[in-house]
Amino acid sequence: MRKINLGIIGLGTIGEGVYKILKNQRSRIKEYYDIDINLIKTCDISPLLAKKLKIKKSKFTKNYMDLINDPNIDSIVELIGGTTIANDIAINTLRNKKNFITANKALIAKNGFELLSLAKKNNVQLLYEASVGGGIPILNSIQDSLLINQVKSFIGIMNGTCNYILTLMANGIEFDNALKKAQELGFAEADPTLDINGMDTAHKVSVLSKDCFDFDSKVENFHVTGIENISKIDIEAASQLGYKIKLIGLGRIVKNKIDLRVHLSLLKKDNPLCNVDREFNAILIDSKNLGPVMKYGYGAGMLPTATAIVSDIIRINSNINRSFKNKKYKMFNINNLESKFYLRLNLKNNPGNLAKITKLFAKYSINIEKILQNPDNVNLKHVPVIITTKKSNYKTTNKLINQLDKLNIALKNPLLIPIED
Amino acid sequence: MRKINLGIIGLGTIGEGVYKILKNQRSRIKEYYDIDINLIKTCDISPLLAKKLKIKKSKFTKNYMDLINDPNIDSIVELIGGTTIANDIAINTLRNKKNFITANKALIAKNGFELLSLAKKNNVQLLYEASVGGGIPILNSIQDSLLINQVKSFIGIMNGTCNYILTLMANGIEFDNALKKAQELGFAEADPTLDINGMDTAHKVSVLSKDCFDFDSKVENFHVTGIENISKIDIEAASQLGYKIKLIGLGRIVKNKIDLRVHLSLLKKDNPLCNVDREFNAILIDSKNLGPVMKYGYGAGMLPTATAIVSDIIRINSNINRSFKNKKYKMFNINNLESKFYLRLNLKNNPGNLAKITKLFAKYSINIEKILQNPDNVNLKHVPVIITTKKSNYKTTNKLINQLDKLNIALKNPLLIPIED
Repeated sequence: MRKINLGIIGLGTIGEGVYKILKNQRSRIKEYYDIDINLIKTCDISPLLAKKLKIKKSKFTKNYMDLINDPNIDSIVELIGGTTIANDIAINTLRNKKNFITANKALIAKNGFELLSLAKKNNVQLLYEASVGGGIPILNSIQDSLLINQVKSFIGIMNGTCNYILTLMANGIEFDNALKKAQELGFAEADPTLDINGMDTAHKVSVLSKDCFDFDSKVENFHVTGIENISKIDIEAASQLGYKIKLIGLGRIVKNKIDLRVHLSLLKKDNPLCNVDREFNAILIDSKNLGPVMKYGYGAGMLPTATAIVSDIIRINSNINRSFKNKKYKMFNINNLESKFYLRLNLKNNPGNLAKITKLFAKYSINIEKILQNPDNVNLKHVPVIITTKKSNYKTTNKLINQLDKLNIALKNPLLIPIED
Repeated sequence: MRKINLGIIGLGTIGEGVYKILKNQRSRIKEYYDIDINLIKTCDISPLLAKKLKIKKSKFTKNYMDLINDPNIDSIVELIGGTTIANDIAINTLRNKKNFITANKALIAKNGFELLSLAKKNNVQLLYEASVGGGIPILNSIQDSLLINQVKSFIGIMNGTCNYILTLMANGIEFDNALKKAQELGFAEADPTLDINGMDTAHKVSVLSKDCFDFDSKVENFHVTGIENISKIDIEAASQLGYKIKLIGLGRIVKNKIDLRVHLSLLKKDNPLCNVDREFNAILIDSKNLGPVMKYGYGAGMLPTATAIVSDIIRINSNINRSFKNKKYKMFNINNLESKFYLRLNLKNNPGNLAKITKLFAKYSINIEKILQNPDNVNLKHVPVIITTKKSNYKTTNKLINQLDKLNIALKNPLLIPIED
């Protein structure tokens, strides 16, 4: 029987889940996998959490270096989040020739390449299945089989809070109430900024781009927008047009460039991602030999995420041990994106304004596919007008919007969303 | 670098795919996984296939024992299908202390438990990821993480031919034409009997029941029906009621029994399985800690299935090495199933017949939820009448159908389909 001697740094929600699974399933893991996972020591800034979990004093410390320097520990799980102390822990753990397991997407997004090469150099493993998709086994699947096939693209709904809010809005509930409900149910953080503004999804896209394309992207370098500007009007209009609005994270190879993006998107109702509602996540990966493969499940939560951590612990020394090859792809610029678009304008309610707009579309050679205007709105000061375009260029479409702003016939900054057909 | 010395028995479609991937991706596999897969010898009853693939004469034999007895070979891939010669190959391979990798669902369904214990005894591995879900990595995921969580149930669309036919029928095409189209596109075998009658799905359910529940079920012991009796009327009626009709394979723990079944089912339109159309497969697994996880992709085809074989080869000696624990669950009897049902009768077009039927429902205390009857059909000799029930017992519902047959007011053997809500 193999033995893994473990240290856990961080006893928050996920740490508690890992602790519970290891405690309750130790004999099951022995029986099924021939592995004995022995928890040597835990660490947290607060001793209260250790007390809550009834961890013995001898198995607890406030100083994480105690774990990193403990010769009896061979593998460390980091669950504190952030990219400063967590990075220090990662570097010291790997340098001390211990395996490093984490759920920290921000850390892997930022320093994944460097940490993996440090792990290789020290002949230990860096594992981070829990950083993307919570309980959905996605990264290990990519490593196990998708890599053989050369991934062409991924697209996913990777943030449960946003998806929950969008689902509630599709049922007629306004943004603020939907967010409140998500917080009550525990999907959204007390401060949901990183969920709502797309940054949580961006970290996952960055991690996936490393695993799928060997591409070391930083979130600062790609287009990231969130769900802040969405309203019930858009959700209803999308539904009328046969689409649902979802926040997607996307990565794809376009010739020798990697296109990475996070934004709202109109998905056709027969798209398999379209039925992914509420707090569920799903990621669809298209590869050369396998074609599309989608995985669906809870993207977060204590036990799903903790399960991913434990499955990584079981994979330690599994020989499936890969490295990133920096292929030096270039980053695709979103200005070069060709797509159908959904544009929602809030037009001043004067006759002739729509004619001015259609003239502008003609000038920029952008073909209008449909115009939706609700006759119920005729008495409003500003009427929402929805225009969908045929395939057009992102940069040109934004130029048109700039011109529109100058005409002063609509509210500034209209909502522009790509349509995935 | 680890070295795997391989033999392949069977050079049909999947064998060709494996051969091609190993040839084209050998250096990529070396680079990413530090594994050199060295193909020592191939075997087929027909030398023509070896010729087609330009395999050297020295690397080909018609006698599979040449591979099994070759001391230079450590792992054998079996791709001939069936359960007689394939079983002989499996037993001899494992006894000779070589790893055995297969896509043969019928073999694993029938002899999986025995073969795995033979593998354990000889300290080699039995791997069969390709036997369920083709290119969808499902079994390895179960072994990697779901087992920690104790699987509660699985339900899936596991046969691409049936799903393709049902999708085409939902678009107005009749059964026979849909089957013909599936054959033209290469999804359906020349003899599609095992697809259509549910037996292919049953083999997969049997394999999954071993991996999910450690339950050694044989296909003879559970309820298996196919898609033969479905008509356009049913698909349209289901759609009107807010459902889609799919052929599902299902396994779940009901107290200390395992409920395994293959049959048509009405799935609600917001069920994630419902958007799984055409030749796609999907399997939804519910486990204690992870909640529902669904995987979606091509369930068959040369390259997806071959990819699963190659990912198994890469997993050889990965230490993730589990055995079946026969927990001695009992088999759940479908007669005890409580479910909502869809019943389509072909009623003789005489006044008063519907009253006789509703009386019969009252007698058996089965509550009717809805009755659908198309007024356009009034001139037909037999009119299709669709009745959906509230939750009722399968055995009682069949008793009612028997009584109905005796009344001689409808065609015999009406269509009865459980509804998944």
